[in-house]
Amino acid sequence: MKYFDSKRKEFTKLIKKLQIKITGAIEKADGEAEFQIDNWKREKFGFGSTRIIENGKVFEKGGVNISAVLGPLPEALQQSLDEENSDFFASGISLVLHPQNPYVPSVHANYRYFELFSKDSSEIKDQWFGGGADLTPYYLFKEDAVHFHQIHKTICDLTHPAFYPRFKKACDEYFFNHHRNEARGIGGIFFDHVRANEDTSAQDLCEFAYNAGLGFIDAYIPIVNLRKDINYNQQNRDWQEIRRGRYVEFNLIHDRGTLFGLKTKGRIESILMSLPPHVQWRYNHKPKPGSKEQQMLDHLKEVDWLNLQNN
Amino acid sequence: MKYFDSKRKEFTKLIKKLQIKITGAIEKADGEAEFQIDNWKREKFGFGSTRIIENGKVFEKGGVNISAVLGPLPEALQQSLDEENSDFFASGISLVLHPQNPYVPSVHANYRYFELFSKDSSEIKDQWFGGGADLTPYYLFKEDAVHFHQIHKTICDLTHPAFYPRFKKACDEYFFNHHRNEARGIGGIFFDHVRANEDTSAQDLCEFAYNAGLGFIDAYIPIVNLRKDINYNQQNRDWQEIRRGRYVEFNLIHDRGTLFGLKTKGRIESILMSLPPHVQWRYNHKPKPGSKEQQMLDHLKEVDWLNLQNN
Repeated sequence: MKYFDSKRKEFTKLIKKLQIKITGAIEKADGEAEFQIDNWKREKFGFGSTRIIENGKVFEKGGVNISAVLGPLPEALQQSLDEENSDFFASGISLVLHPQNPYVPSVHANYRYFELFSKDSSEIKDQWFGGGADLTPYYLFKEDAVHFHQIHKTICDLTHPAFYPRFKKACDEYFFNHHRNEARGIGGIFFDHVRANEDTSAQDLCEFAYNAGLGFIDAYIPIVNLRKDINYNQQNRDWQEIRRGRYVEFNLIHDRGTLFGLKTKGRIESILMSLPPHVQWRYNHKPKPGSKEQQMLDHLKEVDWLNLQNN
Repeated sequence: MKYFDSKRKEFTKLIKKLQIKITGAIEKADGEAEFQIDNWKREKFGFGSTRIIENGKVFEKGGVNISAVLGPLPEALQQSLDEENSDFFASGISLVLHPQNPYVPSVHANYRYFELFSKDSSEIKDQWFGGGADLTPYYLFKEDAVHFHQIHKTICDLTHPAFYPRFKKACDEYFFNHHRNEARGIGGIFFDHVRANEDTSAQDLCEFAYNAGLGFIDAYIPIVNLRKDINYNQQNRDWQEIRRGRYVEFNLIHDRGTLFGLKTKGRIESILMSLPPHVQWRYNHKPKPGSKEQQMLDHLKEVDWLNLQNN
């Protein structure tokens, strides 16, 4: 029998720490708005802390949420995991930011720990880590995309050199609006069901998730500071709101995290905090050929950002 | 063996007729905007006519689309219908309107015919009709809800007295945002997989779908004319845009028609024409107790509109 070391307490402690550090960095970058805090509890075992920023100087809407829940595996997951007699534990941090200025990208990051255990708690049957971070610009600054990827590669490499190439590819595949045949943004990293093995222990994975969560600050905040004061007009703003529509489509049609939340009857307002504040849908909108808007669209596919000469 | 009378040609002719009559009535009610027409064809057999109205005096965005497609049953549907060796034919009209003025409700209607037949076309294996119409007000005028239901009841009763009570109930159940535990609007009628039987022939059902489609004009346009000139302010408009967010949530998370379109690789811009033009998501927005906005929310549940004393 495989020996599992429960990471419930440690991981939950780490995401609490991450939430404090990340919300602090975001408030500092915003310079005006503060997060409002909604703590919640769920029958039996479950708690969360939803922290929302709205109508800031820089951030129009965003949230940095943590939660930890424990209980019988919901029916919908029993089937997909082929585990009828297990309870589960899941804890994670999830953040999404939608800035005011169309030249500042939206961003998402999420790190989570999942455990399956026997109903009498005597045995952990399985455990894995998941998460990632991806950037969704409305206008393309190649150097920002490179920076975002470089920071994540550096953090991945500290744990395992195979991580970045694998997780970068998984990110391009996951954050993809199949119904429109275009990526949500310029990618980042994404991993799911990553288990301890000979190379990386559960402890390594726990620390990796923490480092990547902390790395979000270095990966994103410098981009915000560089772009937040660029002048923009109503046309730029319309473009941003139309592209936010694609963000909504991804989250409601394809995102497993959102669907997991709905299936496990999670707190709706915490799950759907990811949806942008102002959004537009226009019929068959297409940017002008050669425009900055079209240039962005042209890069919504797999791009090897750290070897641009390879593309 | 059951005898089936193919309604492909007749139904397709009727929805073409409906499209002309309905778009005419909408243009007349708008007084300014005209529908733009996008006709499309699909490999092998499939065509559609997407008609879109945008930035009108009354209608901010809407579409009245028809399509007819024929081909092998998509994999996703083979499972749910338990039919691996059949081809299918589907044709229908689908309309959604999002008015500018928050006092004018959004509306949706859809009537469709579906046929399963053997790959050599020698045998029709099954055929059914589906459709319905439902109203989504942002502010409640009870008399409008009563009018909308009364028109549909009258049309239902012409074909079968059991239709309205059955289809009204199905509508309340179907257009429901389960993740928020609230109805999308004040209902109407909804039916699916309705087959010919001793009481109602395929011909009766074909005519019923046509009459209901035509009845949309009587059910909706008088409400538009009554409410389109009511003064409104930014606060009313914000409320409308927030509620439109619930419309998006329903269509992308729950609506079988939208999911059918995405699974059968339909034309994305025609499928997603149903999404409103300007939409907002605010964190945990709640109207004031006793407000007109709260009054609307209080009626987003099963209400017996034609017997209000029963509620």
